[in-house]
Amino acid sequence: MKISGLAERAGVALSTLKYYQREGLVPEGVHRNANQVDYDETHVQRLRLIRALLEVGGLSMAGAKDVLRTLDDAAKPLAETFEIAQAALARRRPSSAASTTSTAARSRVHHLAQSRGWCISDENPGLEVAAEAIEGMLAIKHEPSPEYLDAYADAAEAAARADLQALSLLSEQDQIAELMVVGTVLGDPLFAGLRRLAQQDATREMFSTTTTPQEPPS
Amino acid sequence: MKISGLAERAGVALSTLKYYQREGLVPEGVHRNANQVDYDETHVQRLRLIRALLEVGGLSMAGAKDVLRTLDDAAKPLAETFEIAQAALARRRPSSAASTTSTAARSRVHHLAQSRGWCISDENPGLEVAAEAIEGMLAIKHEPSPEYLDAYADAAEAAARADLQALSLLSEQDQIAELMVVGTVLGDPLFAGLRRLAQQDATREMFSTTTTPQEPPS
Repeated sequence: MKISGLAERAGVALSTLKYYQREGLVPEGVHRNANQVDYDETHVQRLRLIRALLEVGGLSMAGAKDVLRTLDDAAKPLAETFEIAQAALARRRPSSAASTTSTAARSRVHHLAQSRGWCISDENPGLEVAAEAIEGMLAIKHEPSPEYLDAYADAAEAAARADLQALSLLSEQDQIAELMVVGTVLGDPLFAGLRRLAQQDATREMFSTTTTPQEPPS
Repeated sequence: MKISGLAERAGVALSTLKYYQREGLVPEGVHRNANQVDYDETHVQRLRLIRALLEVGGLSMAGAKDVLRTLDDAAKPLAETFEIAQAALARRRPSSAASTTSTAARSRVHHLAQSRGWCISDENPGLEVAAEAIEGMLAIKHEPSPEYLDAYADAAEAAARADLQALSLLSEQDQIAELMVVGTVLGDPLFAGLRRLAQQDATREMFSTTTTPQEPPS
């Protein structure tokens, strides 16, 4: 297909597609002649993946580049791919240049990780992300209870197990790397979306908004 | 305290604080005389809450305004506060103007919600958020398994229950509204951070990066 067809299939503006090409995110097409370059399904898939990383995953351009470069490098060990995906995710947030959280918030996360017996490194970006969330709760003078934090830790463990379970069903190294990256990025919005749904279902009973139905005019 | 002290206490630049004031996000201080306006702890708390909503929660300025206005309106029913928090969260993402997901992705979310027996409205922004995440998985030709989706739905339900449990322990209406908003916004990054930690712990065994330890020089 032509470049215009590719843009349409992937749902991106032609100018955006050309920008991605200049940035080296999309592999070159096949040059048929001086005026025509051909693209195929692999280009459509790649563009959809870029959209997912940028729009849904909220990655920065630099983060998406890192992730795609890692995916294209079959020699990278899988654990490294995971780390790069995690680091790209950490960078998507504006305030991650330096640790801005209080000792109080960070110590709650460390304590939680310790109580779960999690074996983690001090560089794991999740420490700062979770601490920032707790910091926001402390800012409104709400101390998250141990039960609340444990429920979230349970949820996180269950999701992490499901992530690894999905990976374990794949046999090709490049498929594993791809799902590792995409699953790391997209697992968060998947949870966020489902949590909104579960909240609505659960609140329905707790805080009823039901008003008395209007009598039909007789 | 003076405005410079307030900025310092809340960890925001003075120019940023003045911007928030112009936007009406921060209540006015007490005018002592023509040259001095006094601020107190309530202003510090409010600024920390604004930072949490914008920086950690990733809300847009308009979203944060809606949320703060709702919090300041004691007459709003709680279910409505919840809806406004959810809507503000939905708006933080650039591509939410219209539904951009495929029928395939959306039908998987509807099917999942149905199989869980969730009673939800078609306007719940979580539907689109979850569908976009699934769309990204389908883009790399990865079909999320029913077990995977169920694990995430379990996690979402557990988190939603913990959210409501925390709310049920409060008695003051304004405290409930505040936690409802902040918890809705910050529960996502809390989960995201903890999931990174749980992933690292779980991957340690699955994909070992351990290199042979160096012998100490003898």
